[in-house]
Amino acid sequence: MDESEKLSKSETIRLREKFIAPSCKLFFKADPLKIISAKGQYMFNEKGDKYLDCINNVTHVGHSHPKIADVAFKQLKTLNTNSRFLHDNLVLYAERLSNLLPPPLSVCFFVNSGSEANDLALRLARTHTKRKDVIVLDHAYHGHVISLIDISPYKFDHPGGEGKPDWVHVAPVPDVYGGKYRDDKHSAEELVQLYSDEVQKLIDLSAANGKGISCFIAESLQSCGGQIILPPDYLRRVYKSVRDSGGVCIADEVQVGFGRVGTHWWAFQLQGEDVIPDIVTMGKPMGNGHPIAAVITTKEIADSFAATGMEYFNTYGGNPVSCAIGNAVLDIIEEEKLRENAIVVGNHLLIGLKELKEKHSIIGDVRGVGMFIGIDLVKDRATREPATVEAQHIITRLKQELILFSADGPNRNVLKFKPPMVLSLNDADHLLRTLDSILDEIKAAN
Amino acid sequence: MDESEKLSKSETIRLREKFIAPSCKLFFKADPLKIISAKGQYMFNEKGDKYLDCINNVTHVGHSHPKIADVAFKQLKTLNTNSRFLHDNLVLYAERLSNLLPPPLSVCFFVNSGSEANDLALRLARTHTKRKDVIVLDHAYHGHVISLIDISPYKFDHPGGEGKPDWVHVAPVPDVYGGKYRDDKHSAEELVQLYSDEVQKLIDLSAANGKGISCFIAESLQSCGGQIILPPDYLRRVYKSVRDSGGVCIADEVQVGFGRVGTHWWAFQLQGEDVIPDIVTMGKPMGNGHPIAAVITTKEIADSFAATGMEYFNTYGGNPVSCAIGNAVLDIIEEEKLRENAIVVGNHLLIGLKELKEKHSIIGDVRGVGMFIGIDLVKDRATREPATVEAQHIITRLKQELILFSADGPNRNVLKFKPPMVLSLNDADHLLRTLDSILDEIKAAN
Repeated sequence: MDESEKLSKSETIRLREKFIAPSCKLFFKADPLKIISAKGQYMFNEKGDKYLDCINNVTHVGHSHPKIADVAFKQLKTLNTNSRFLHDNLVLYAERLSNLLPPPLSVCFFVNSGSEANDLALRLARTHTKRKDVIVLDHAYHGHVISLIDISPYKFDHPGGEGKPDWVHVAPVPDVYGGKYRDDKHSAEELVQLYSDEVQKLIDLSAANGKGISCFIAESLQSCGGQIILPPDYLRRVYKSVRDSGGVCIADEVQVGFGRVGTHWWAFQLQGEDVIPDIVTMGKPMGNGHPIAAVITTKEIADSFAATGMEYFNTYGGNPVSCAIGNAVLDIIEEEKLRENAIVVGNHLLIGLKELKEKHSIIGDVRGVGMFIGIDLVKDRATREPATVEAQHIITRLKQELILFSADGPNRNVLKFKPPMVLSLNDADHLLRTLDSILDEIKAAN
Repeated sequence: MDESEKLSKSETIRLREKFIAPSCKLFFKADPLKIISAKGQYMFNEKGDKYLDCINNVTHVGHSHPKIADVAFKQLKTLNTNSRFLHDNLVLYAERLSNLLPPPLSVCFFVNSGSEANDLALRLARTHTKRKDVIVLDHAYHGHVISLIDISPYKFDHPGGEGKPDWVHVAPVPDVYGGKYRDDKHSAEELVQLYSDEVQKLIDLSAANGKGISCFIAESLQSCGGQIILPPDYLRRVYKSVRDSGGVCIADEVQVGFGRVGTHWWAFQLQGEDVIPDIVTMGKPMGNGHPIAAVITTKEIADSFAATGMEYFNTYGGNPVSCAIGNAVLDIIEEEKLRENAIVVGNHLLIGLKELKEKHSIIGDVRGVGMFIGIDLVKDRATREPATVEAQHIITRLKQELILFSADGPNRNVLKFKPPMVLSLNDADHLLRTLDSILDEIKAAN
């Protein structure tokens, strides 16, 4: 037994079943993984098997990065307290994040999770606009607290969900491959028009009901919804419609921010320099696994919120340790040129996957940018019928080959690539070769 | 300038004003503190001034505890990932927490903050009972997310608040000194009857409206409400009424758990061995400042929640680093006998404060248990009129004497003592002497 392992795997499972709520699910339920250590883009189980990690988008700069451990250790030995005291780590980190965003986005709130961030973003939007209605994209997931389950079709339209509240309006996700309007029927110009018109219709509906939209919230690339790349011009048009109606625009960058797309720090920037949300939320990769998240907004919106007189206090948010770690993550992204790596490896992988698509008809679509890639599996390229069972099988086979992958999207047929940003060209080639041979197997078996 | 200080204090303030939302308030606004290091029960500013910390209830085992830094460092170098992988730290910590609670409370959810914990507790209660109505105590604070502002009179009844939703029912806080029913008019037996009857009335009202109560939620000792000690038998009666009506009982131990009361691990246990909530939430001291929190409930309630089919996933919740730190906090409480210290120092302070009450008529009431003490200041002992201005003055003077204190309660006239659990008898004596001389000054000035 490894020194980091205190229990046998069967005992770990027994205690988990006894003491951890059954709603908290394991990956690979039938044969879950016990991971006891990890380094960079690799995870190791209790037997020492080395897995290539293509799913942990939280450990952004790589697992167990020594610099993260060092700065956390140093700050934990010095001071860890709340933000009601002045501290340099807090203000320097806030300044640095602000400098990574276009100018009007400059006022920060620090919190502990993407859920806390999106919940606060909703409060900001409602307070600023004095309205409640919200437009979301279908299949979106924005967090696990009550207010966010209310605006997450990924939750409220699924088992245990209670449907959408009347103040929530769901626009079709602009998925041009498998969505409501598709690129086999419409031109690119028609698609962006059709999808943005759907948002306009909801804005008009809310206004007609005497309500009006407080905000439009969307991930700048939709993750749980199936690795969706928003069509060019989509956010520009939608943001304009929302603002013309008096609402504000929230970009949820919790999963896709911090340079995952490579060319930019934030995925909304893919839509053009002039496309700027009013509120940005960030989380998962921000502390490389340490619980930290943030909301960054304009001075105008922050001032509206302050004008109510209600204090915002978050016990752990913005503490010196969290800010030291957040700052170290930014250092590492820059020092190790991880955005550049995301471009190089991401492009290499996209090219390789498109080659696999030529060879394997089950691959209906390959889409992505940087270290955010989706492989949309279909039973039939003409109908684009989702290959759900096959996706699950491929994931199981990849796991047997020591590659960790997951599938998502409304039909769970989109393979999701969202690895630590340190994944290498060699890893990408290994992934391509392994996937190729698994797809060969499937072909041979049919 | 100290090596931990990167900016002058004025520059820190300038950046804070520019980049941190104005809703995030500082302690001692007029002359905020810049704290750059801390050790045990002491905090140090940029000039090296040493403050006795009587307010940081989060740094439970003392500031900058070396064991916390050590275990965090070790685990950060090894693995930090989510709870969809099996890990020993998670299950061993869950087992240990369960063993600190009475038997039916054994199933854990790990989250990142008290707010996430209370939000989830509400979801559990609603799912289990299939009802929405909630009974809370007046002046209660349960967290900063939207769902919890809705049930926190401390928020919704104050500037920026929107009043209570119709599904929230507010019972008077059983404050026998300054509350609706007082110990100068009623016997102890009458008081508990009157206050618990108020809850019964709300239960009946909700039932009469065809709704029914999903839950009663209360801090086991009310903190923001003014350091309130619940009267003996109060929770026993209220929990029975709530359960008889089909509701469940949530004990919010976010501020007061983990042995702060000394004699017990959890403050609800002060009410008797047979007084057991259905759901317990915990947070602040749990990771000594590291963002970790939990909800622990019965198998029955956890199973109801799982039966809906909705997964509960919390990205950072229960990660190996958080659990290692949580486990170390429990070790330190035990190894350093901090519960015993809370009893000894808390009793010593209570005796000393009661002596000061004999001497200074501004002290209307001294109440507390362990390291949770309130000093209720009044202008007149007969009317019990709150001495709000005087309380603020005393806090300012204590700060000048390098002692950090705060005031709270609906009239901000209750001095709150909730220090790190390592505060010593010498510190307590120093506090008593300093408070005595400040009260002498006030007397001399009037």
